[in-house]
Amino acid sequence: VVALHDDGIEVTATWREEWVVNPERRYTHGGLLATLIDMGADWAMVRKLGRPVPTIDLRVDYHAPAMPGDLTIRGQVVRMGGQFSTSEARVFDAAGKLLASGRGTYLTAAPKA
Amino acid sequence: VVALHDDGIEVTATWREEWVVNPERRYTHGGLLATLIDMGADWAMVRKLGRPVPTIDLRVDYHAPAMPGDLTIRGQVVRMGGQFSTSEARVFDAAGKLLASGRGTYLTAAPKA
Amino acid sequence: VVALHDDGIEVTATWREEWVVNPERRYTHGGLLATLIDMGADWAMVRKLGRPVPTIDLRVDYHAPAMPGDLTIRGQVVRMGGQFSTSEARVFDAAGKLLASGRGTYLTAAPKA
Amino acid sequence: VVALHDDGIEVTATWREEWVVNPERRYTHGGLLATLIDMGADWAMVRKLGRPVPTIDLRVDYHAPAMPGDLTIRGQVVRMGGQFSTSEARVFDAAGKLLASGRGTYLTAAPKA
Repeated sequence: VVALHDDGIEVTATWREEWVVNPERRYTHGGLLATLIDMGADWAMVRKLGRPVPTIDLRVDYHAPAMPGDLTIRGQVVRMGGQFSTSEARVFDAAGKLLASGRGTYLTAAPKA
Repeated sequence: VVALHDDGIEVTATWREEWVVNPERRYTHGGLLATLIDMGADWAMVRKLGRPVPTIDLRVDYHAPAMPGDLTIRGQVVRMGGQFSTSEARVFDAAGKLLASGRGTYLTAAPKA
Repeated sequence: VVALHDDGIEVTATWREEWVVNPERRYTHGGLLATLIDMGADWAMVRKLGRPVPTIDLRVDYHAPAMPGDLTIRGQVVRMGGQFSTSEARVFDAAGKLLASGRGTYLTAAPKA
Repeated sequence: VVALHDDGIEVTATWREEWVVNPERRYTHGGLLATLIDMGADWAMVRKLGRPVPTIDLRVDYHAPAMPGDLTIRGQVVRMGGQFSTSEARVFDAAGKLLASGRGTYLTAAPKA
């Protein structure tokens, strides 16, 4: 964890070579970026709720191809609700360029005893 | 490739142990399922266009936790357009249960020469 | 209601002149089409649950500009769940051309007594 | 137009009685809120491009029921691109409560001559 904002969280992920699924089709790392968006949005909720929450749905916008290099993820809660909540995250490269961003709906109803 | 439908494609992915990122939080395999949705929707486009296309945005609905086991992905083009197109995919477990489904917008403008 | 399918519903909406918010910017009827997608997806749930359900989130893909003329909406449940569910709908013009399609997440937890 | 931010726009919409489609199902004003999200996100692009742009897809999260009263819409560009762009908007009630928020993908390729 690199930094905690008032209503957000920021994490840096160290580059791993296996993230490059196909060296010639660099622009199709969509799954990894989607994973990072989901994690960043979930972390922002964990920080407020103290527990991870299941993802109901996830939406990701791809802004630029992710080249090899460390990535920074910033997550932020959009609205915390009793039954379900909305959280968002953005992924940046080492130069601060926005690569992907997105939102998820999370199930925040209290787990059944 | 298991089967080709009139306007779709069906692929089975063999289970790999590394898909279980966290054995106790089974419901957070969201990134893998998002990757499979993106791949399935992209494959359905590849079959029509003969080339992979970049993902503009991706939306995934999580329906049930994915337990260890082979997964089947069915992709289908929703609308093929000149500049951008919509494609969708569904992921099923070995018993045919729908685990996740989703859609993506893809850039289908001809690549620049 | 024009037709009931096994797991879906089909409704035709008669064209109303006030749907044209701006005669020169025909392609910006997005709000009306989003409304019809939400209604169609909700109706498919009403048919199964016997009551309308609140929309948690809605995603709409625009495929072609909607010109004046009656519209047909087809709604279908993707997955019915205990706490939240996914439903989808498609909007066609009188010639059967797909104009818009989309999905919503709906709150299907039983209302509090 | 109430206010222009560095990279955003803020507009207040005066309440109209016809926005209440069904007085007993207050929570289903989804279509109107979706329209306002689309408009707000589009306005933020208009301000940068000087022309309205077609909506490729729209995603809306509903946070709270919209009761009668004026609404404020804040739109902001997420990423401006050459072919397609991402923009977002939030809708608040008169008390500043967040009612809905969302994002759209817009076609920003130059119109053909």
